Amino acid sequence: MCRWLVYSGSPILLDTMIYRPPHSLIEQSMHARLGVETTNGDGFGVGWYAGSKTEPALFRGLGPAWSNRNLRELSGHIVSPLFFAHVRASTGTAVQETNCHPFRHGNWLWMHNGVIEEFARLRRALAVEVAPALFADIEGSTDSELMFFLALTFGLTDDPPSAVARMVGLVEQIGREHGVPAPVQMTVATSDGTRMWIFRYSSEHRSRTLFYSTEISTLRKMYPEIEPFRRASPETKLVVSEPLGDLAGAWNEVPESSYGVIQPGEDEIHPFQPQPPGSGSS
Amino acid sequence: MCRWLVYSGSPILLDTMIYRPPHSLIEQSMHARLGVETTNGDGFGVGWYAGSKTEPALFRGLGPAWSNRNLRELSGHIVSPLFFAHVRASTGTAVQETNCHPFRHGNWLWMHNGVIEEFARLRRALAVEVAPALFADIEGSTDSELMFFLALTFGLTDDPPSAVARMVGLVEQIGREHGVPAPVQMTVATSDGTRMWIFRYSSEHRSRTLFYSTEISTLRKMYPEIEPFRRASPETKLVVSEPLGDLAGAWNEVPESSYGVIQPGEDEIHPFQPQPPGSGSS
Amino acid sequence: MCRWLVYSGSPILLDTMIYRPPHSLIEQSMHARLGVETTNGDGFGVGWYAGSKTEPALFRGLGPAWSNRNLRELSGHIVSPLFFAHVRASTGTAVQETNCHPFRHGNWLWMHNGVIEEFARLRRALAVEVAPALFADIEGSTDSELMFFLALTFGLTDDPPSAVARMVGLVEQIGREHGVPAPVQMTVATSDGTRMWIFRYSSEHRSRTLFYSTEISTLRKMYPEIEPFRRASPETKLVVSEPLGDLAGAWNEVPESSYGVIQPGEDEIHPFQPQPPGSGSS
Amino acid sequence: MCRWLVYSGSPILLDTMIYRPPHSLIEQSMHARLGVETTNGDGFGVGWYAGSKTEPALFRGLGPAWSNRNLRELSGHIVSPLFFAHVRASTGTAVQETNCHPFRHGNWLWMHNGVIEEFARLRRALAVEVAPALFADIEGSTDSELMFFLALTFGLTDDPPSAVARMVGLVEQIGREHGVPAPVQMTVATSDGTRMWIFRYSSEHRSRTLFYSTEISTLRKMYPEIEPFRRASPETKLVVSEPLGDLAGAWNEVPESSYGVIQPGEDEIHPFQPQPPGSGSS
Repeated sequence: MCRWLVYSGSPILLDTMIYRPPHSLIEQSMHARLGVETTNGDGFGVGWYAGSKTEPALFRGLGPAWSNRNLRELSGHIVSPLFFAHVRASTGTAVQETNCHPFRHGNWLWMHNGVIEEFARLRRALAVEVAPALFADIEGSTDSELMFFLALTFGLTDDPPSAVARMVGLVEQIGREHGVPAPVQMTVATSDGTRMWIFRYSSEHRSRTLFYSTEISTLRKMYPEIEPFRRASPETKLVVSEPLGDLAGAWNEVPESSYGVIQPGEDEIHPFQPQPPGSGSS
Repeated sequence: MCRWLVYSGSPILLDTMIYRPPHSLIEQSMHARLGVETTNGDGFGVGWYAGSKTEPALFRGLGPAWSNRNLRELSGHIVSPLFFAHVRASTGTAVQETNCHPFRHGNWLWMHNGVIEEFARLRRALAVEVAPALFADIEGSTDSELMFFLALTFGLTDDPPSAVARMVGLVEQIGREHGVPAPVQMTVATSDGTRMWIFRYSSEHRSRTLFYSTEISTLRKMYPEIEPFRRASPETKLVVSEPLGDLAGAWNEVPESSYGVIQPGEDEIHPFQPQPPGSGSS
Repeated sequence: MCRWLVYSGSPILLDTMIYRPPHSLIEQSMHARLGVETTNGDGFGVGWYAGSKTEPALFRGLGPAWSNRNLRELSGHIVSPLFFAHVRASTGTAVQETNCHPFRHGNWLWMHNGVIEEFARLRRALAVEVAPALFADIEGSTDSELMFFLALTFGLTDDPPSAVARMVGLVEQIGREHGVPAPVQMTVATSDGTRMWIFRYSSEHRSRTLFYSTEISTLRKMYPEIEPFRRASPETKLVVSEPLGDLAGAWNEVPESSYGVIQPGEDEIHPFQPQPPGSGSS
Repeated sequence: MCRWLVYSGSPILLDTMIYRPPHSLIEQSMHARLGVETTNGDGFGVGWYAGSKTEPALFRGLGPAWSNRNLRELSGHIVSPLFFAHVRASTGTAVQETNCHPFRHGNWLWMHNGVIEEFARLRRALAVEVAPALFADIEGSTDSELMFFLALTFGLTDDPPSAVARMVGLVEQIGREHGVPAPVQMTVATSDGTRMWIFRYSSEHRSRTLFYSTEISTLRKMYPEIEPFRRASPETKLVVSEPLGDLAGAWNEVPESSYGVIQPGEDEIHPFQPQPPGSGSS
């Protein structure tokens, strides 16, 4: 189990969201409140979009985020309008940078909190479903990276909700074939640098928590005394595994079995349902 | 704040004591029960005496002990009659191997749980008291290593209780000179490979916890069904920052402001009191 | 390109063979003499058999062997009658412990110097040939580990020469199907803890160097003044990527396209020829 | 022995200077041409000034620069008008981030190639000369960092040439007192974010190499076909331990026993001579 955060809005220093809030992601790496695993010290990563480059940058590291000086340095100097941050608690696979989130392919980022149950038994059957042209780019050994490559295989870059639905459909189908009744547990974030998609789903419909921040315009009215709300652009949006701080009204739970689209203009939230992997992408 | 363990007895595999007990040191690295800092993921170390060599071996690493595969490998293959194990929670200094315990000098090992209060302010005044011939061997930046080198300066290899008493006396004296009323908080273990000395002390007499194991002969009578007690030599002794498991009668608290000697024959426990650093070693 | 060493003989401290000889493996990690890549600083590993355990121990690390203090410590304290040591120069895959040699499966060790040409293009076709029951144990992303798992699939634990011949046959067949005319370049060592097999082969018959040590009894007569030769057991044997030191007569090149068996009693050397992967194991 | 590079000029991506030139610093980390130690794989670091912050950012790492993916990522995304880059070959002290260059204090950066001879013997006498208020900020164990703190003690932030001259004077004086006739070997770069000072000196006047780049306006005339010269600002300046590439006329050796000032307007080069440490700063 892991914790993650995505930010979209006015360009800000990464540490504004990663280190400074009460009950920040860094604090969650040491003492999370929600969920089973409360220590998330098995590696970390940040991925950010910036400048004229469409490909995001990655910084990933072994060991705990809380004591990593390079992460602190970089977070205090890097400005981005759209970034991912993740602290990892391994569910068994090795602690190595190639197993740290976010994962990247072209201009896409992906990160995950959750698990494919009995992944060791399902791994080969899942791996052979990855498109041959993508297979060589798998670098680590996690369920999370394999879910990303399966979603890419199913057309993530064209239609993320459909690709993720078919990926989940495949994992559930292969799980059933191997006698694993509830194989998927996930919250996922993915982005192409312009829009961001978030997913909350598990086979048994008891998914890990996921929260999105209230509209800045609303927060300004509720808390006129809080200065960052005055400065933030109206489009500013955070999605987190567990709330930062304790501000009443600031956080809304993403409903069970649903996905959201964070984008310029109106955000969206829709029901999420696995699809048969063989189905079309429309 | 850290957690540590020392073992003395029949030669055993390190993992017997580090990994296998309930509430083992490895579990304590992730979720300790006693004390303020309950996550000890800022490096670790083991030091062990073995074979005909008088100089102990060290294996120290960055990151958490709980996910370190090399530690698991080595613990499952190395046999020793006397070893130290330590999991670290940094109180501010860098996470690097030279800041990990145990520290070694010649055939001596040293490890510490605690802190010198306001160490940054006191560091220079303490460092200049280290014997010139020893100074160049200081590799890290911790208060713990400096305490070791001060104790060596005061004759640790000849008379450990006196040397540690004078080291503490010096820290308290320099602390007072700098307006730090209660500068020392410590439990310490040190050994020359034959005997082992343990210390529990703090300037304000509210020292961190320290426990030693009950005589094996007593435990055998209390728990005739527990097989490891039947196999262990009568000399077997463990000293730990916090108890392993919940076995009633197995653990005894080292009293506040005292030190113990674990040795062939009768162990000893005595009151501990800082001495003026300029005093003789008798 | 990498460098490796295997030792079989009287139990000795690892550092006797890894650090102390002139032009040792550690020196080769910084400045090798033979081959294209002369810096081997992308991780290292040792695997050793010891005591009553049949499963060997592994110690693998990131970064260069030459500056690794833990390797120096362990090599100076661990005694073994049969061990592998490897220094790595990555041919493209990530520097992470799971990509460091030796690899282990049950009581088997495996290490490799060489490359599968255009591995990225061949990787998927090779991976799907790994036996499903073994697939989940693949942890890294190297060609070397995949060669090991293919050899295991083809019966390495029953008949190593045949299994390696079929593994090479498969790689060459899949290489041809993908337009890679000379896909295999390898020297390999593998052991079950009792015997050791070494292989030198490349598709174009210009294989990387491999040397084995002359019989101790012969060396004693040639160099009666060299003390280690007097102490070593008659069975002592070293196999190395490039010679340690410059002692005339001490090293013999393993012939192109051949394999050897180091075992109690008479060692053997035979021609090596790839076999069709579908062939039986006799 | 190490290799380093400083860049001052139009804001550019770090990788433009660190990775892309022929015989780049990254290539030098694996195979340097000049000097004794040709492998520089014991850690690395970059420090850069950017944006409105006066304090530079640091990214330092263990292991070789050539295989570090985070360095490659960051170099491809970070833009700066003034940055330091360093690859380290340890002369004995531990490989740890706090021993990696550049070192930072406030808005100052410092890096060094060279050595204090017999540093272990001189270390304590030098350390006690560091100003008490600065002492606690020493984090590592290198001669290089101690030279920085001595220069800070002697007024680096007010008058860098004088402070460095007095630091060198002190090391030579203490060296003589300990029977070390030629204790200093150094090339040094230091900056406050606006100007940059470079030093080349050794007690025996056989200093390690140091080169600065020819004026861009001259290079444009010499090489009208080279596009980067057309784009670079006239102020662009590189100083390097050894030349990048083989472009005739592009590199000028900094003379033995001299220092330079790289600044807006005219650069300067002056003779360098150690001063008695007790002398004033004028």
